[in-house]
Amino acid sequence: MLSQIGRRTADSPISWLMKTKLERPNLVSLAAGFTDNESLPLVSSRRLLNEILKNEEAGRSALQYGSTAGDDILRELTAMRIEQLDKISRNTKTGGLAKRMVITHGSQQFLYILTEALCDPGDIVLVEDPTYFVYLGIMQSRGLKGRGIAMNRDGIDLEHLEMVLESLRRSGELKRTKMLYLVSYFQNPTGRSTSLSIKKEVLNLLKKYERAAGHPIYLLEDAAYRELGFSGQSDPSAIFVPGASSRVIYSGTYSKPFATGVRVGFGVLPDVLLAPFLRIKSNHDFGTSHLIQKLVLEALRSGEYAKNLAKAQHRYQMKANVMNDSISKYFPELVKWEKPEGGLNFWAELPRSINTGLKSKFFKEALNQNVLYVPGNLCYVDDSTRCKPNYKMRLSFGAASEKDIRKGIRSLGNVLNS
Amino acid sequence: MLSQIGRRTADSPISWLMKTKLERPNLVSLAAGFTDNESLPLVSSRRLLNEILKNEEAGRSALQYGSTAGDDILRELTAMRIEQLDKISRNTKTGGLAKRMVITHGSQQFLYILTEALCDPGDIVLVEDPTYFVYLGIMQSRGLKGRGIAMNRDGIDLEHLEMVLESLRRSGELKRTKMLYLVSYFQNPTGRSTSLSIKKEVLNLLKKYERAAGHPIYLLEDAAYRELGFSGQSDPSAIFVPGASSRVIYSGTYSKPFATGVRVGFGVLPDVLLAPFLRIKSNHDFGTSHLIQKLVLEALRSGEYAKNLAKAQHRYQMKANVMNDSISKYFPELVKWEKPEGGLNFWAELPRSINTGLKSKFFKEALNQNVLYVPGNLCYVDDSTRCKPNYKMRLSFGAASEKDIRKGIRSLGNVLNS
Repeated sequence: MLSQIGRRTADSPISWLMKTKLERPNLVSLAAGFTDNESLPLVSSRRLLNEILKNEEAGRSALQYGSTAGDDILRELTAMRIEQLDKISRNTKTGGLAKRMVITHGSQQFLYILTEALCDPGDIVLVEDPTYFVYLGIMQSRGLKGRGIAMNRDGIDLEHLEMVLESLRRSGELKRTKMLYLVSYFQNPTGRSTSLSIKKEVLNLLKKYERAAGHPIYLLEDAAYRELGFSGQSDPSAIFVPGASSRVIYSGTYSKPFATGVRVGFGVLPDVLLAPFLRIKSNHDFGTSHLIQKLVLEALRSGEYAKNLAKAQHRYQMKANVMNDSISKYFPELVKWEKPEGGLNFWAELPRSINTGLKSKFFKEALNQNVLYVPGNLCYVDDSTRCKPNYKMRLSFGAASEKDIRKGIRSLGNVLNS
Repeated sequence: MLSQIGRRTADSPISWLMKTKLERPNLVSLAAGFTDNESLPLVSSRRLLNEILKNEEAGRSALQYGSTAGDDILRELTAMRIEQLDKISRNTKTGGLAKRMVITHGSQQFLYILTEALCDPGDIVLVEDPTYFVYLGIMQSRGLKGRGIAMNRDGIDLEHLEMVLESLRRSGELKRTKMLYLVSYFQNPTGRSTSLSIKKEVLNLLKKYERAAGHPIYLLEDAAYRELGFSGQSDPSAIFVPGASSRVIYSGTYSKPFATGVRVGFGVLPDVLLAPFLRIKSNHDFGTSHLIQKLVLEALRSGEYAKNLAKAQHRYQMKANVMNDSISKYFPELVKWEKPEGGLNFWAELPRSINTGLKSKFFKEALNQNVLYVPGNLCYVDDSTRCKPNYKMRLSFGAASEKDIRKGIRSLGNVLNS
C-alpha cells in the first residue's frame, strides 16, 4: 500500500528522543538537539516583529507569499554574513553567493531537497565516521548507500578518504558516488572541526576521481554549528576556495544560533544544481514562510542577531565547562573524551565492554536514572567495510540547565561505576 | 549527475507566474495565487505575537523546537474547527481527529509528503479534470500517472469515475491506483464544490474497486478553499462519513484564510499512514516552525481568526462581484463563465478557436497589455485517454485590487475583441 519510501523510512531516533523528553519533563535529556532556553531571543524577537508588523508595507510583505528561493534581502545579508565569517572583503569578487542561495525551513530541509535532487536509490554518499545521525535518516529513507570515512582530531582522514575513493574506483562504484557530506565545524557528534587546508585537500581528491566517476563529486559542507564556536571565530569555509563555486554545496542555519522555533536555514548551490533544487522546493512548499524570514532579516540588519549570538556563545561555553568539570568529577578514569571548542556536544568513549545502544542494559539503566543520551552507534553509517563502535555516546549540553548537566552526568557516572 | 527526480521535475508554472508578478509590479496578475493584501491580519498578528513573546513560558516554547506532528493544542483547536465546520457536536464521537493530524509548512507540504509516502513512480492518481495545477507538478516530479475524471456543475462526475475505475480494473492498472485527489470546496480552478452526497458515492465506488486493487484506494480531500466560501457555510466533508477514518485523507490550510506568509497547513490521516508520514516529515524538517504555529493557535483561541476570516470572506465576495460585473461588461458574449460562491477563481471558457496556452498569441498579447492569467490547459493532467482543452483560462480575483480586476478584465476583453 505504501510507496518504497513510505515502507523503507525508519523511525528517526531523534523523534523518539525529542518525544520522550517532551513527555517526561523531569528527564534530564543530554540527547536531543534542543537549544539553550535562556538565550532564546524573546525580547528582540518581540521588538522586531512589532516593528515589521507596525509598518504597513513590511507587514503585508511578511504576511504574504514570497518567492521560492527566499527573501532577496535575507539572501544578501546571509551572503555577507558568510563572507564576514570567511573574512572576505566586499572588494573581493565572491561569485554572487546570494544568487546561488536558497532559504529553507531549517537546513534540514535543504539537506533533504538537495539529496532528493542529486541521489537515486543505490547511489553512494561518503560521510564522516561518525556523522550527524539525522542525515543518515535521510540516506536510509532514500535508499542510499554510505561509506564511512575515518576522522582524526583535526577532521576527516585524507588517507582513508583516498583509500575509499580508490576502492570505489576499482569496484566501478565511483559512478554511483555523488558527494561527500562533511559537518565541518564543531561536528555533530564529535565536536571536531575540519581545517581549511584539509578541506582544500578534500576538494583536490574529489576532483582527482571525477574522471573515473564521469560526473562531479560534490563536497557538501554542512556548517550548521559554525556560529556556535565559543570564541566566535571559525576557519574559512570551502566555499571561496578557487574552483569551489561549481563543486561545493554549503548549508547553514539560523535555527541553532538564533531560535530553533523559527526554522530558517539556507544553502548555497553550484549553478547547475540551483534550478532543479528550486523546482523541487516549489513542489514542497512554494517557499519558506515569509514572516520568519523577515524576523531573521531584521535581526541581522538591526544587530540583534550578533548581540544575541554572543550571549548564546557565552552560555554554551559556560555549559561546556560545566559538562567538562562534571565528567572529570563523576566519570571513571576509563572514559575518554575531548572538550569541544564549540557546538553543542561532547563525544565520550567508554571501555569497549560497555554497550551503549538503545537496547543495552546501560541505556535502560540510564533511563531509570532519568537521563537520556544519544547512543554512539546511531551516528555511524551502515557500511559493511567498517565496524560500528557501540561503546560511545553523544552528550549534549545544549538544552539542559547547568544544574541538570551536573545531575545528568552524575547519574551517568553512577551507572558507569556500578 | 542529477537524480531521476532532479532531472524529471519540470519548472512549475506557478513559480514563473509569481516571479513575473514580483518582477513587474505594474502587471495586473489574475494568475498567481497570492491573496488579498487588505485583509492580511497585521494588527491582530502583531498583538498576538506580542502576547506570546511577552510571556516567558509561551515565548520560549514558541522559539524552541516543537514535536514533528505539531503543537498539541493547535491540533486540538484545528480538530474542533473542522468539527464546527462539519457541525458535529462535541458529544458525537469523531474518532480522535487531533491524534491523526499533522501540522505542516502549508498544505502543499502535506500533499507532497503524503504523495511521497504513498506513491511510487508509475502509480496512478485520479484527479478532477481540471484540477489544482501545483498538485500536477508533484505528480509529474514523482513520475506518477494521472487519469482525469470529468466534472459536472455539482462536482466530480460519478459515472465517469466508475467508467475509469472499471477500465483500470480491466487493464490490470487498478493495482497501481492509489487514490483520488479531490479539491472539494470552491475548487481550484473551476470554483465548483462537490456535495456530501457525491462524496459518499465516491467513497462507495472506491471501496467497490478495492478488492480488485488489492489495497485501499484513498480519497484525498483537499479542503484548502473551504473557509473561503462567501457565505461562511460549507457542505460537510467526507471525513466524518462512517468508515471514512480509514479511507479519507483530509488536508487544509491556514495560509489562505489567515496569512499566506505564515505557511501553516495541516492534514488528517488514517492511522496506518500516520507513522510513515511522520517519519518522512521528520527527515524533511523535524517539524513545522513553532513560532508560526503558536501565532495561528492564538489567533484561533482569541477569536481573531474568525474575525479576520469574516472580513476576508467579505472582501473576496466583493472582489468576485467586481470580476463578475467586469466580465459581463467587457468580455464578448461567446465567452462562458460561472460565478463562484467562494474561493479565489473564475473559470472562463473561450470559443474553441482561441488557444490560451503559455506560448499562444493570445497569452502574449495579454502580457503586452500587462495582464496575466493561468492558461486552462495547465490545469489538466497528462492522460492519453482525455483531451486537454486549450481554450479556457483561470482568472483569480484573490490578490488584485478592485481597480486592477476591472483594468485586467477590460484588457483581456480588448484582446478577446481584437
